[in-house]
Amino acid sequence: MSDVLVLDRLDDWRRTSDCGALRAADVGCEVCLMGWAQFRRDHGGLIFIDLRDRGGLTQVVFCPEGSEAALERAHVLRTEYVLAVKGTVRARPEGMANPNMPTGAVEVVVTEFKLLNTAATPPFPIEDRIDASEMLRLKYRYLDLRRPKLAANFLLRHKAVQSIRRYLDTLGFLEVETPVLTKSTPEGARDFLVPSRMTNGAFYALPQSPQLFKQLLMMSGFDRYYQVVKCFRDEDLRADRQPEFTQVDIEMSFVDEEQVMNMAETMVRTMFKEAADIALPDVFPRMTFAEAIRDYGLDKPDIRFGLKLVDVSPIVRESQFQVFAKAELVKGIRVAGGAALSRKEIDDLTEFVKIYGAKGLAWIKIKEDEWQSPFAKFLSDAERQGLIEALDIEVGDIVFFQAGAPDMVNTALGYLRIQLGERFGLIPEGTFAPVWVTDFPLLEYDPEAKRYAARHHPFTAPQPGNLERLADAPAEALSRAYDLVLNGSEIGGGSIRIHDRETQKAMFAVLGIEAGEAEDKFGFLLRALEYGAPPHGGIAFGLDRLIMILSGAKSIRDVIAFPKTQKAMCMLTEAPGEVATAQLRELGIKLRTRDKDKETP
Amino acid sequence: MSDVLVLDRLDDWRRTSDCGALRAADVGCEVCLMGWAQFRRDHGGLIFIDLRDRGGLTQVVFCPEGSEAALERAHVLRTEYVLAVKGTVRARPEGMANPNMPTGAVEVVVTEFKLLNTAATPPFPIEDRIDASEMLRLKYRYLDLRRPKLAANFLLRHKAVQSIRRYLDTLGFLEVETPVLTKSTPEGARDFLVPSRMTNGAFYALPQSPQLFKQLLMMSGFDRYYQVVKCFRDEDLRADRQPEFTQVDIEMSFVDEEQVMNMAETMVRTMFKEAADIALPDVFPRMTFAEAIRDYGLDKPDIRFGLKLVDVSPIVRESQFQVFAKAELVKGIRVAGGAALSRKEIDDLTEFVKIYGAKGLAWIKIKEDEWQSPFAKFLSDAERQGLIEALDIEVGDIVFFQAGAPDMVNTALGYLRIQLGERFGLIPEGTFAPVWVTDFPLLEYDPEAKRYAARHHPFTAPQPGNLERLADAPAEALSRAYDLVLNGSEIGGGSIRIHDRETQKAMFAVLGIEAGEAEDKFGFLLRALEYGAPPHGGIAFGLDRLIMILSGAKSIRDVIAFPKTQKAMCMLTEAPGEVATAQLRELGIKLRTRDKDKETP
Repeated sequence: MSDVLVLDRLDDWRRTSDCGALRAADVGCEVCLMGWAQFRRDHGGLIFIDLRDRGGLTQVVFCPEGSEAALERAHVLRTEYVLAVKGTVRARPEGMANPNMPTGAVEVVVTEFKLLNTAATPPFPIEDRIDASEMLRLKYRYLDLRRPKLAANFLLRHKAVQSIRRYLDTLGFLEVETPVLTKSTPEGARDFLVPSRMTNGAFYALPQSPQLFKQLLMMSGFDRYYQVVKCFRDEDLRADRQPEFTQVDIEMSFVDEEQVMNMAETMVRTMFKEAADIALPDVFPRMTFAEAIRDYGLDKPDIRFGLKLVDVSPIVRESQFQVFAKAELVKGIRVAGGAALSRKEIDDLTEFVKIYGAKGLAWIKIKEDEWQSPFAKFLSDAERQGLIEALDIEVGDIVFFQAGAPDMVNTALGYLRIQLGERFGLIPEGTFAPVWVTDFPLLEYDPEAKRYAARHHPFTAPQPGNLERLADAPAEALSRAYDLVLNGSEIGGGSIRIHDRETQKAMFAVLGIEAGEAEDKFGFLLRALEYGAPPHGGIAFGLDRLIMILSGAKSIRDVIAFPKTQKAMCMLTEAPGEVATAQLRELGIKLRTRDKDKETP
Repeated sequence: MSDVLVLDRLDDWRRTSDCGALRAADVGCEVCLMGWAQFRRDHGGLIFIDLRDRGGLTQVVFCPEGSEAALERAHVLRTEYVLAVKGTVRARPEGMANPNMPTGAVEVVVTEFKLLNTAATPPFPIEDRIDASEMLRLKYRYLDLRRPKLAANFLLRHKAVQSIRRYLDTLGFLEVETPVLTKSTPEGARDFLVPSRMTNGAFYALPQSPQLFKQLLMMSGFDRYYQVVKCFRDEDLRADRQPEFTQVDIEMSFVDEEQVMNMAETMVRTMFKEAADIALPDVFPRMTFAEAIRDYGLDKPDIRFGLKLVDVSPIVRESQFQVFAKAELVKGIRVAGGAALSRKEIDDLTEFVKIYGAKGLAWIKIKEDEWQSPFAKFLSDAERQGLIEALDIEVGDIVFFQAGAPDMVNTALGYLRIQLGERFGLIPEGTFAPVWVTDFPLLEYDPEAKRYAARHHPFTAPQPGNLERLADAPAEALSRAYDLVLNGSEIGGGSIRIHDRETQKAMFAVLGIEAGEAEDKFGFLLRALEYGAPPHGGIAFGLDRLIMILSGAKSIRDVIAFPKTQKAMCMLTEAPGEVATAQLRELGIKLRTRDKDKETP
């Protein structure tokens, strides 16, 4: 059918508005709308079409009063056909208005129309409620993106980015582009490589962040820099990661932590207000890394709800319950009303904490007459009394415990807390709770490599006097880093940077980066530090995650126009794909086949 | 010396303004400035420093009235040291004001200062007039970028981009990001490839432009899209090309040429006004491709000056001068006063046109008493009279001719015209002359491949009725493409796209792309065209070139913060570089060494 229809040309037709604009006040106007036939209904010899574009839906009516000829031709119209209509706005008949539709008071009586394109039946309906598989939706991404709810995420994203740009522009930040084809950056993750044709055997790397370039721009005297920039990490993709992601990257000269944090806080607050009319707190709360771990177990605390972790180590240090007595750290978490949890649910939670290295999950249900628990019998009266006071225990509660190495205890209970918050409906919908986390350790121990690595990156400045602590107590040295956490997700992080060469060299030494390697990888930075680098610091936001939280999207793929799967594939274009051998030859590379692997391991 | 100096911490010092802000009205104010010591002058026991930051220069004075201690310490200060000073603004003494400096009426009497960093002697002075080699400047790019004239280009670039964004935002364009890791795009140039680790043997390509993605966004109903986006071409670099470049990429639905051109024209006009206070014409002139070639020889006419090409073929068709008589096309260009050119200059111009395929360059100097020329003797009186009238010849002129195949004649004379315009000072400085070129041929003949290729790209719509002409007169079919040319450079180009599947398939067929290949390369586009693609079109601007013209920079490298050399190398970071074999193994590739080449050709 669609093959035989002759398409009309647009000629000099011009839209008078989008399909979401018309109101009762427009009755009587001559209009021209263009869009897609969302829905067709034939009734009493008339044809009704809901015409859709980015702005919304308008009901257009093909009827004899408008044009007999148009009505006659309208019989060919099907879902997703593209049309342009001219007509007159009229009030819908008494009782036919649709108060759920912004244009629901009116309809357009079609006097003339053009068929701009036909459409095959889509593989899934263009509706917000959809049960098509995500793979199918990604293959037909252009149809998926027609769904108003998904499309709205991109309008929100646009508004958010424009708001950020406006704000930074007001403060004198310059948007400067940094290279995409660059040198391997030392962010710790795996680089995407690009073979060089002009220098066979050499490779560019795609940037994991413009970190060193933005520092160099400060050394150039650019003073205030920002960029909304694609970054790349060739990592095995977790559910909400993408190989390419977008960062709002910011750097300032002659500033300390307060100035960067105040700027960033106001930027986020302004953006939430302008893009989504959401009011964030006038002052974002702050906590130290140590406080976050103590109370929430994680360095990205979700402060929308309580359920804080409580250190009960002193209470159970002498306990008969050996699991507690022997542990370096014992922490508990009390859930009001949690005694109602079934055995199955507790088993599920036990499996859940094992993801984070826990061997099991100790629990006590506080019943009217007893403490129901596999191990309560080992607890002395004094211990019970201590727990009651420390955890504020009441009848009907459940208390979970984790005992062992502090990292495991905090991580396992931290994530358990989130699970429990969701299970018990403690996390308020539509609430946005930002919090700054500060005073991070400068280093973190890498048990595999058996050495310390920079917790943020090797360019983060130590707090005053803390460089010296690295020698005797490396784990205790604190950095001038700060993270902005929103609803339990890290949305931004940054630091004051090292701006003098001697400190930077000392830091490389502490990290076990030898002088030769430092020169090889970071020689240009060390050289730049010789020529008058100003004090500087900055922050970077993960834009995709930020928009995901702002929009309430369930997946990061819902805020990226053309995302990749967890296998890093584009279902739409079928990238990556094979290339001609001649192309590889020009690049001085060839494929390593399995057979050849054996020859040249 | 610098090694032993202990750097001060910024503590709670805050800048009160930048170094370009203070004026006579500020006398008496307490201020805090931070920046670089541009210049130190010791005079009468006092120390004067010109302190520089992005905002400008301020003279600061270390003197006993300010602080004996500060004066004492100031003796360590050297060029490019970084300092923070607190002090009092005072009027410069009678006769010492510097009217060439915005802050020249005042100076700051230093009461306290911090030494924030030292600096080794830079490898070249931080001055606008510089004779260091570009390679050295690129290696120390962070120092090069401190030069105010170069830094100003990036402020201008920032302003230009913000203006463009504001304008497009006003019109309802959404900024949408498209993938960087994608499928090979069919722009005709060589792709940069990125080997996939997850799918060994497969490669991503970096986009040459987001052409197909922006068309897909129109099919998604996004209606109006833009993006300021990095694009990539792995080509041998001409003087003003970079392997990565920035495009202002725009697409609109339900529009024709007029709407795209009007939008783009206003965007450029608004940007010139807002970013640089330059007024462009209220209406940009337009000419067809045929007119441009006829009058200027090139499809990117520089209309800032005359020297139009004149077709003299009819006049010399029967000439005794066989070079003219036999030629398919003979065109001349008259230069008023050009008879003063030396033989050496004419020889140089002859060599110049050979670049464009000319075998030589015919010329006549019009002297008082004779036509001085190697071939004038072959010209009849009638031919001379014809040339005088056609070319408006006067005594003192020189006329250059080119005869032969039209493409060569037009190209050689077109570029000769530019040379002559420069040589004779005909190109007004500081003038900006935009012009639209329209009605391009749809195809162009590729003599190497011996077939027609799309002149713009295979998605450009033919003019009404012109698809049908492809069969009998392929060279005559016109497209719905348009270019915006500024001062002889193409700064933007676009077209109305094909939006129906049958036309797109027909176009692929005309271009010799077989059905299988079309499906393989563009299957997702052909599929998308089945589901209701709206009429759409767009344009893309080369931002780097546009800013280069706007700023008057001589090289595109002067408007890119971290550019690459013609060998596509970054002198600063030394990218591209070698990578570990283990990395290549993960990617399933290995280097093709010369020896192995012999084994497996």
